[in-house]
Amino acid sequence: MSAIGSYIEQHRQRFVEELADLLRFPSISTDPAHASDVRRCAEWLLEHLSSLAPQRVELFPTAGHPIVYAVWEGPAGTPTVLIYGHYDVQPADPLELWDSPPFEPTVRDGRIYARGATDNKGQFFAHVKAIEAVLRTHKQLPLTLKLLLEGEEEIGSPNLRPFIEQHRDLLACDAVLISDTALYRDDLPTLCYGLRGLCYLEVTVRTAATDLHSGVFGGVVDNPILVLAHLLDRLRDGYGRVTVPGFYDCVADPSAEERQRLAELPFDAEELRRHIGAPLLFGEVGYSVLERRWLRPTFDVHGIVGGFTGSGAKTVLPATASAKLSFRLVPYQRADDIAAAVTATLRALSPPTASVEIRLLHGADPVLISPDTPPMRAAARALERVFGRPPVFVREGGTIPVVGWFTELLHVPVVLMGFGLETEGAHAPNEHFHLKNFIRATLTSATFFHEYAHGEGAIS
Amino acid sequence: MSAIGSYIEQHRQRFVEELADLLRFPSISTDPAHASDVRRCAEWLLEHLSSLAPQRVELFPTAGHPIVYAVWEGPAGTPTVLIYGHYDVQPADPLELWDSPPFEPTVRDGRIYARGATDNKGQFFAHVKAIEAVLRTHKQLPLTLKLLLEGEEEIGSPNLRPFIEQHRDLLACDAVLISDTALYRDDLPTLCYGLRGLCYLEVTVRTAATDLHSGVFGGVVDNPILVLAHLLDRLRDGYGRVTVPGFYDCVADPSAEERQRLAELPFDAEELRRHIGAPLLFGEVGYSVLERRWLRPTFDVHGIVGGFTGSGAKTVLPATASAKLSFRLVPYQRADDIAAAVTATLRALSPPTASVEIRLLHGADPVLISPDTPPMRAAARALERVFGRPPVFVREGGTIPVVGWFTELLHVPVVLMGFGLETEGAHAPNEHFHLKNFIRATLTSATFFHEYAHGEGAIS
Repeated sequence: MSAIGSYIEQHRQRFVEELADLLRFPSISTDPAHASDVRRCAEWLLEHLSSLAPQRVELFPTAGHPIVYAVWEGPAGTPTVLIYGHYDVQPADPLELWDSPPFEPTVRDGRIYARGATDNKGQFFAHVKAIEAVLRTHKQLPLTLKLLLEGEEEIGSPNLRPFIEQHRDLLACDAVLISDTALYRDDLPTLCYGLRGLCYLEVTVRTAATDLHSGVFGGVVDNPILVLAHLLDRLRDGYGRVTVPGFYDCVADPSAEERQRLAELPFDAEELRRHIGAPLLFGEVGYSVLERRWLRPTFDVHGIVGGFTGSGAKTVLPATASAKLSFRLVPYQRADDIAAAVTATLRALSPPTASVEIRLLHGADPVLISPDTPPMRAAARALERVFGRPPVFVREGGTIPVVGWFTELLHVPVVLMGFGLETEGAHAPNEHFHLKNFIRATLTSATFFHEYAHGEGAIS
Repeated sequence: MSAIGSYIEQHRQRFVEELADLLRFPSISTDPAHASDVRRCAEWLLEHLSSLAPQRVELFPTAGHPIVYAVWEGPAGTPTVLIYGHYDVQPADPLELWDSPPFEPTVRDGRIYARGATDNKGQFFAHVKAIEAVLRTHKQLPLTLKLLLEGEEEIGSPNLRPFIEQHRDLLACDAVLISDTALYRDDLPTLCYGLRGLCYLEVTVRTAATDLHSGVFGGVVDNPILVLAHLLDRLRDGYGRVTVPGFYDCVADPSAEERQRLAELPFDAEELRRHIGAPLLFGEVGYSVLERRWLRPTFDVHGIVGGFTGSGAKTVLPATASAKLSFRLVPYQRADDIAAAVTATLRALSPPTASVEIRLLHGADPVLISPDTPPMRAAARALERVFGRPPVFVREGGTIPVVGWFTELLHVPVVLMGFGLETEGAHAPNEHFHLKNFIRATLTSATFFHEYAHGEGAIS
């Protein structure tokens, strides 16, 4: 592999410049105003991949944003890997908290700052550069590689599941490889075997036809913000537990082995607290911080708005208020069941003085993966070669809906081999990606191709 | 008085056009961006009043927006009336709910639509036109009239109290007349003898230094929106009562007479409910709707904001959330005491997982006025002459801080003789003022000058 390693080192600067080009697209999938930016980003990828002479490369239109697809054929008899990534990004607001503009990539202290740097452009682009490095040094990949990049991950991948269902042949493979998770720590290579699911809702409360004067009507009509506050407050108790009846019914208790394994991972709660700037960490009683992040479901509110939010004072009695909220789910909770239970609870809590509208924005089931499959073992060997130590096995608190769909529809093992860091501001201001890890990811990806193609006893 | 009545009828169209000119100024006192509009409005008033040849007319600068002052001397030995009004207005948002732009006055169905139409430009301008009508028909007013128009009522009149304290001679009078209240019903002339006070606060909750990814950090750090929801929800109970300890200690129980008087006022709760479009009316148990509006203190949230409020879904775990809230106060609650009690309660409720900042934005004590003073009786006679029936005596749920200051600093009775309607959208979209009441107010004002100048047995 040293030829590949040399190639990567030699072209490192250009790789970073190309990544910066990719990060410049404000491919915000949730915002209709950015639809053309999402498309331009897909077209840039199509052109970029074409330069690596794939056997096939194509943009697939969907009802939403396009899917980018490419195939490089390997030698006969070698396995096929499908690499999945997403080129869409989260919105960048609050913009005022960014130290440099979110769509003007800036390198500082060995990190590239931009929305999408770690989630997920930087991570999937490492695979693209791995493909380039192998092709330029070995003429052919050691296995067949299919690349699938979608533009709707951040809005729940509404068109990907039907696409997989309709293109099973196109996507047929022996394993799926995804780099959209994190290194447990900068120096610890990491494989992830579990993800939380998600049930995301929007609740709107209305108590009157129009805004009213709070002096004249205060004491006569209910307050939609107070009704909403009541609904939200009633969804969790003082122990950090969700109060929705049946919410915990299907939650698997962590095994003693898993609790032990988690307890053995290096972890400093005080350092985490300082990093995120919290007065005190918070979570469900009876579980460690890592258990609360990975093994336990949670409830959060993502946004709330109602009434007068400008500067100064206005004595309006608002007519409406709304909130976006979600539940992170763990095996064996099902997003549909939780949505139904939460909706029923909110309905039961809603007072007759208000009309309450509940909309399910999206849902994804949680995932649990066996750590003992051939591609997972190949990934472990590749990581060990590049990092000089075997990987740790972790779960993650986030959600990648597509992982469950690949398992369910393609019937192949999924490998979650990520190179981001949890401190890199995914979904937050000043998102960045460590360039050291971008390069390590590129080298690991190329090494994985080799390890998986040649099997357990191969000599590199 | 028929000469005055004829004059008003004859110049009605011009009066309305001049009122429209006044309403065109977006004199939003709370918004620094509109400071020059507030000033231009004051300058327009100065010029307009100058055309009525007062003995003195002047703009007084303050630390905030200017005060407009004018005096018309009456015959020796006649009483002096100080008329107070405010030329500043509330913000106009949400703009999309206005049927015509808030600062482009539009007449529809005998009403003039614009921000400030009923609160308070239309009401004080009726007095200006009364002055004109009397002067043009009788050469001199029958009493000395001082006019005081401030530009900061909607932000709690921060500079008016010191102005009154420093200009007691300038403002010396026998009675204060204010038209910033409502007719109980379109056909019922009304005098108001009580106003609620106000204690307005802003609460900001912070749980982390920056926004975080809810998948990665959900279950680790508290949610500021949920903390805020908890604080707000805990401030009232299921009976519509405020839970702040000591909150009701100084609240005067309504007398049996007053409850009886209120019960006898014509009132249709179902009509009110339909008018405001509420699924069901809401308020403190044990009190009638009118009692809840006028005699009982209330708690409302005016605005809330935190996290992602755009369209679509974003799984951010926000770092902060904030709300604007107020308590309407009744005799003998004191705004300062309530602010201290609410702050202590919020502090006690605040969890160690969040930092909570509480700011008092403004406060005003409630007011209770004797209905049996010479100017109040003169107002009652004037109303009876114009409306053909004696006035009803009511309280109001709103707050006019200056009323308490006049009583306290000038030691004279205050007359609250308003001509707005509670259905006219004060502080809300589509604010308007009935032109019929604008004209009746003008005639009543001129009649009041006469009644008060000549006393009980006078013949008009």
